[in-house]
Amino acid sequence: MTTRAIADAAGLPHGTVSYHFASKQELLVQAALDVIERLFPLSELRALRTLPELLPALSSAIESERDGQVLAGVLPEAMREAARDQVLREWIAELLREYRRVASELVRTWQRRGAVPTEPTPTALATLIAAVGDGLLLHSLLDPELDVAGATEALHALLTASDRDGLP
Amino acid sequence: MTTRAIADAAGLPHGTVSYHFASKQELLVQAALDVIERLFPLSELRALRTLPELLPALSSAIESERDGQVLAGVLPEAMREAARDQVLREWIAELLREYRRVASELVRTWQRRGAVPTEPTPTALATLIAAVGDGLLLHSLLDPELDVAGATEALHALLTASDRDGLP
Repeated sequence: MTTRAIADAAGLPHGTVSYHFASKQELLVQAALDVIERLFPLSELRALRTLPELLPALSSAIESERDGQVLAGVLPEAMREAARDQVLREWIAELLREYRRVASELVRTWQRRGAVPTEPTPTALATLIAAVGDGLLLHSLLDPELDVAGATEALHALLTASDRDGLP
Repeated sequence: MTTRAIADAAGLPHGTVSYHFASKQELLVQAALDVIERLFPLSELRALRTLPELLPALSSAIESERDGQVLAGVLPEAMREAARDQVLREWIAELLREYRRVASELVRTWQRRGAVPTEPTPTALATLIAAVGDGLLLHSLLDPELDVAGATEALHALLTASDRDGLP
């Protein structure tokens, strides 16, 4: 695929596309960042009040894009470019870190209310939750039959298993 | 990359490589299946006796390949080919299903001993654990600083939180 083919597909003049992006690689990674942000906007993550809201939100984000050709088309191309270029890899890594930072704040607040065990640190739990999200996304792209909701409900059950006092 | 370049890199005559693989795409996906099987052999997964052994094993498998160029080189290429070809995608999906089947047996045995809540089904928990493994693998390739062990320990803590009776 060339930048010209991408410009044609987007209905833009080739000059516009090549003016804004230094290379096809950069364009693909920017497109992937855009796809990720549209799939699960950081603003939506920041707006969540409690940890139990996070897992259904994650599950519906994945389900919503399940048959999406955009995701299946753009993400693997971008991952391939990122594997080859450290600068592009760092762009994606930085976005992932931001998701984890916001998720760890949710965990911290939830732990203060005594609703989750304080033993795993907020950072460790946020890293786990982010991995679950992207792991399920990857596996659902490979396997259309995958029960994504079942897996996020399982994590939800594990996270709230200790919530014996029935905190809201 | 051409099949000739791959043959050169592997120190094999080009004819040998092109005789065994119908296309470069097929070769890349076969290479990925091989990398996955070497990273975490199914035989090793089948040999595990208890669920708590699984997460440290997963963590060391990921850590062992962290700086591995093979993983970073082969997996993204294979994912890209799989995204474009349903037959190749099905090969990877079938291997993933086999990992989940074996992991769900571990969960089932562990639940029978009363060591994990029986509420999430073995299949849902196995799907979750497999997603954690591949999600952490993906994120650790993107971010060398990622605390993989911390995240698997967090899942381990959640899984065993209800194990109050100290079953081994």
